[in-house]
Amino acid sequence: MKTFLNCIPCLIRQALDVLRISTYDNSTREQVLKEVIEYLLEEDWTKTPAELSTRVYGIIKKRTKQIDPYKKLKEKSNKLAAKLYPQLKLMVSKSRNPLFTATKIAAAGNAIDFGPQGIKINILKNVREVLESDFAINDFEKLERSLLEIKNILYLADNAGETFFDKVLIEELVKNGKNVTYVVKGSPIINDATLIDVAIAKIDKVAEIITTGTDCCGIVFNECSNKFKRKFETSELIISKGQGNYESLSDMENRNIYFLLKIKCSTLAEEIGVEEGAIILKKG
Amino acid sequence: MKTFLNCIPCLIRQALDVLRISTYDNSTREQVLKEVIEYLLEEDWTKTPAELSTRVYGIIKKRTKQIDPYKKLKEKSNKLAAKLYPQLKLMVSKSRNPLFTATKIAAAGNAIDFGPQGIKINILKNVREVLESDFAINDFEKLERSLLEIKNILYLADNAGETFFDKVLIEELVKNGKNVTYVVKGSPIINDATLIDVAIAKIDKVAEIITTGTDCCGIVFNECSNKFKRKFETSELIISKGQGNYESLSDMENRNIYFLLKIKCSTLAEEIGVEEGAIILKKG
Repeated sequence: MKTFLNCIPCLIRQALDVLRISTYDNSTREQVLKEVIEYLLEEDWTKTPAELSTRVYGIIKKRTKQIDPYKKLKEKSNKLAAKLYPQLKLMVSKSRNPLFTATKIAAAGNAIDFGPQGIKINILKNVREVLESDFAINDFEKLERSLLEIKNILYLADNAGETFFDKVLIEELVKNGKNVTYVVKGSPIINDATLIDVAIAKIDKVAEIITTGTDCCGIVFNECSNKFKRKFETSELIISKGQGNYESLSDMENRNIYFLLKIKCSTLAEEIGVEEGAIILKKG
Repeated sequence: MKTFLNCIPCLIRQALDVLRISTYDNSTREQVLKEVIEYLLEEDWTKTPAELSTRVYGIIKKRTKQIDPYKKLKEKSNKLAAKLYPQLKLMVSKSRNPLFTATKIAAAGNAIDFGPQGIKINILKNVREVLESDFAINDFEKLERSLLEIKNILYLADNAGETFFDKVLIEELVKNGKNVTYVVKGSPIINDATLIDVAIAKIDKVAEIITTGTDCCGIVFNECSNKFKRKFETSELIISKGQGNYESLSDMENRNIYFLLKIKCSTLAEEIGVEEGAIILKKG
């Protein structure tokens, strides 16, 4: 997905959100914000918003020396999600279509995010709302058919805490005889899942774990490790969680890719033709 | 009021809103947006947001050659407000405290705006909500006392359509023996009231009319006419409508000024210590 003009003020606003939790010094905030704006002015806006975000967060990390400003929020998300996990498992076991319910739960987990929608969100409320709503785009039947033909799934994670929701879906996929490789970020970026979050949710018990090898938003291929790129190139089926991954991969062709996410901004909602806040399972 | 860091992405987003209705050409939008961002980068952020807005809108006007992009929206606001006017008058005549009710109505009219809150708002819904709520800051008693001591009021208008709501308050002030000078913008800026809107609401029948002599957001003194500045300097009591005027004048000292507005952004709400969306009548 290309960067829309709307993304520019949004990226600056997100930069300010991160700056606010990265430093208490207002003159540093102002100085770094100006540097972010300068970068955006000089950047090529035909790149994806995820690529621009990656650089924006990179500038802030470098200048404030705060490697992981969302650490506490991620810990909170993990705690909350860990508590919910038994309930989610129960929902799946009681369901007539466990795989579909698990897919829905994985989408609901994507309500945990602190990027596009700012940091003041109520996770529990958001998750409940999503679980009660239908997919605005529902390619589940296509996914089911495709699953009959493949063995190996590459699962691109999004946020910390959401990992517990992903685990529910991964466990159903494993029950259906699939091998899952779960991809998290190589180092902290916003509240994206890293190896720490994998360990907390114990996903390594049910899936192979790799990282992107870097701290990109979404997937920025020229920053990723060769190991990840090889895995991606040879993947049979990809489940891509969240808006950052969607922004990065939505224009790719000839891929067996399923985007599973909550739509978190009006610009993407308009582009896809759904309401803001909708959940979608969309074949790429 | 100084410009907060939060104001910067908001100003860029507002610029995009105006660009979207000023030109259909996306490359012009991008080019002008970049020019706006360049200007903001070079500007002194200790100026007021109203000063920065004035320059931003100036750049857009100059580049797109669209002198009055909000013309249609203003016409719509005027039509809607004109229809409401008889109901508003009835509310005042039935009221136990007509001056207070009229003040409340004037505040409710400030719900008509297309700047900080974007252009997709439901005027009627907003106005009703405001009429049903209390002032979060209520200096009405101070205003009443001050009115006993003065004869002439300078009334700084904000938006088109809101003019009908202002007329309701002005008529009450006139009934109480006051002379009112109503100040509108010298030429179009966003949906701010100009002489056209005065004529539509027939405010010239109840008040003396002057303009700022320019198209500034709020009041930018070094752009205003000498006539306006003299009027302002010698005013006994000022009623200042809306956020733009508040941003411009809130730091002025030794003025008998009453700010009457709806708080349209979280940053100003936090600064003043009220909820976003609140209405206030605040002695300056």
